[in-house]
Amino acid sequence: MIPRVQKKNEPDRRPSIHPETQPENTGTSGLIVREQSPENLEFTFASLGSVITPNESFYVRSHFPTPEIDLNTWRLKIHGDAIRKPMNLTFEELLSFPEATTTVTLECAGNSRVFIRRQQEGVQWGQGAVGTATWTGIWLRDLLERAGVKNNARDVVIEGADRGELHKEPKTPGTIPFSHSIPIAKARQNVLLAYKMNGEPLPPAHGFPLRAVVPGWFGMACVKWISRIAVTSQEYTGYFQTADYSYWEECDELPPQLKPVTEIDVKAQIARPALHEVIPANTTYLVRGAAWSGESKIKRVEISVDGGKSWHLARLTSDPSHYLWTLWHYEWRTPAEPGSCVLMARATDEQGRTQPLEHSKNRGGYRVNFIVPVVVKIK
Amino acid sequence: MIPRVQKKNEPDRRPSIHPETQPENTGTSGLIVREQSPENLEFTFASLGSVITPNESFYVRSHFPTPEIDLNTWRLKIHGDAIRKPMNLTFEELLSFPEATTTVTLECAGNSRVFIRRQQEGVQWGQGAVGTATWTGIWLRDLLERAGVKNNARDVVIEGADRGELHKEPKTPGTIPFSHSIPIAKARQNVLLAYKMNGEPLPPAHGFPLRAVVPGWFGMACVKWISRIAVTSQEYTGYFQTADYSYWEECDELPPQLKPVTEIDVKAQIARPALHEVIPANTTYLVRGAAWSGESKIKRVEISVDGGKSWHLARLTSDPSHYLWTLWHYEWRTPAEPGSCVLMARATDEQGRTQPLEHSKNRGGYRVNFIVPVVVKIK
Repeated sequence: MIPRVQKKNEPDRRPSIHPETQPENTGTSGLIVREQSPENLEFTFASLGSVITPNESFYVRSHFPTPEIDLNTWRLKIHGDAIRKPMNLTFEELLSFPEATTTVTLECAGNSRVFIRRQQEGVQWGQGAVGTATWTGIWLRDLLERAGVKNNARDVVIEGADRGELHKEPKTPGTIPFSHSIPIAKARQNVLLAYKMNGEPLPPAHGFPLRAVVPGWFGMACVKWISRIAVTSQEYTGYFQTADYSYWEECDELPPQLKPVTEIDVKAQIARPALHEVIPANTTYLVRGAAWSGESKIKRVEISVDGGKSWHLARLTSDPSHYLWTLWHYEWRTPAEPGSCVLMARATDEQGRTQPLEHSKNRGGYRVNFIVPVVVKIK
Repeated sequence: MIPRVQKKNEPDRRPSIHPETQPENTGTSGLIVREQSPENLEFTFASLGSVITPNESFYVRSHFPTPEIDLNTWRLKIHGDAIRKPMNLTFEELLSFPEATTTVTLECAGNSRVFIRRQQEGVQWGQGAVGTATWTGIWLRDLLERAGVKNNARDVVIEGADRGELHKEPKTPGTIPFSHSIPIAKARQNVLLAYKMNGEPLPPAHGFPLRAVVPGWFGMACVKWISRIAVTSQEYTGYFQTADYSYWEECDELPPQLKPVTEIDVKAQIARPALHEVIPANTTYLVRGAAWSGESKIKRVEISVDGGKSWHLARLTSDPSHYLWTLWHYEWRTPAEPGSCVLMARATDEQGRTQPLEHSKNRGGYRVNFIVPVVVKIK
């Protein structure tokens, strides 16, 4: 949403209570319920154990109720003023395109929102609006090639079958479908239209029968329940990339400008210890977590156990790869004496981008990648 | 602002009371005060008598307090990534450019907002956030030519010396200056940087020492108290053309899209009679007003005295001209019997564009050009 600018007299909420330490409604799958309807469910990041997140543990982000889709009547419409041969494909026809598989980390643009010092509107995500799956489907570029893209193509607008009206500011202009656009170059590079998630048919909550996977971009671009794809010669400025999912970009010589959220920011998250976890003195504790960065690879992860005074290299336990998180750990020799310690993790990517110490208020409740301290007790 | 979508249970305010019939604070100049600070003052449109609006009767639209400017220290900075030779001009140096004069109608994008059936946020303008003046200054194109514009130029960002922070939604990202951009083609066509208004030095409320006049565009583009002009290679998306001064454009094949308000819509306004004016039966009454249309000329104005059942051509009493309102009148033979009549005026421009009967809610509180009925009493 249009970033809400914080007032100075709003209460300071940080260090806030780690959401995992609060009582939560948990469904049968162990996901943390952040909203019942539409369904917004969070992965318990403290349980991170492998690169791939199982489907039943994968976070769910929905803007409107899950649409019921009958595969017999479902069609994928390809249209727009920059398409030569509009198409209307059945699911069977989709399957005739070459199948492709890719492993990609998805992160919600609002992940970690709850850690922002002053409360932000929106779903109060902790660390778990992020997850990694192996996606199988067809390349968007193969579909576009068959439909014939004109030279003046600019944006590819992906529209879902989910629709509704939002009454809070910023209100939607009546009932609208979820939609998001991707520049034609990115659409041709590596956007997948996925019908399988970790080898299973795409679950309803994750966009059955077809969702977009936009590697390196925040999740709002990964439109679920796809019904239409339009290629347009003009820039697309729909609700979910202007009124919502936008932020104010500062510029030296110009006033701030509204920009859509796109690429995932570089970030490391500590899975364990959890906030206020009690850890024995004088032992070896395996601090562990994951790190990722939009279009780049993770170069290094550093850990501080003294509130940022000194930093130590963590060991990357899975190969750094584009579009995919890297697992890491750090063997921490805990202090001999009881007390408390402040742990921090900081990722740097191959482009040299790293994490800030504070959240920029111009980002509103999005792009939250500042270093979140984890206080633990030594006993 | 992001158009506020009306709820069905909001009170129906139309037919509303014509603001001129309500008691109003009027300053010494006869302007209707809509807001004291920042200064937002409305022309008494019922007093319309000539094409040119005198300076002291001209509407004032301000977003922030009027800045105090000392001509000795004031500079106009020309900069941006699409400018070859950045400049920093004194007022004297500005005067060395060829002087140009043009007569242009300015209308606030929120003019007539009070007539919308369901109340909209923003200054509650009646008919009088519109006026016409003869502006003298220099062509923006002459300035740009001297500064050297690169081939990749896209937008010309004009920034005022007025600044502030808005705390209502949509909030500004902190303290920002007023600014607005114009596409390079329009900037080169006929945008004037004015330092005189109707032959007088530009009054402080109207942007002393320099304001933009953007013929055919709503007033928000006519930045006052200009301090900087940037030519950019990228699209400019500042607050006053995204979060504010924007609307939702409907499209057949795509979800609604956020667009900046730009060109003035075709519109006729009845100056007299006023709402609920008492008019003698069986007499000739001169219905009169003005009509205008952004980049086009007025083709015709039609009048109805029976609530829209039948329409009659009005006589255009000033030559239709681009960027300039046309005065019109209609000799109405009033009914022989007492009762009430509903008057309407409808303008059509040379492109065939005319006025709707209802305000589109996707326009929020902007671009209000639906036909506003004027009920009068015959006695």
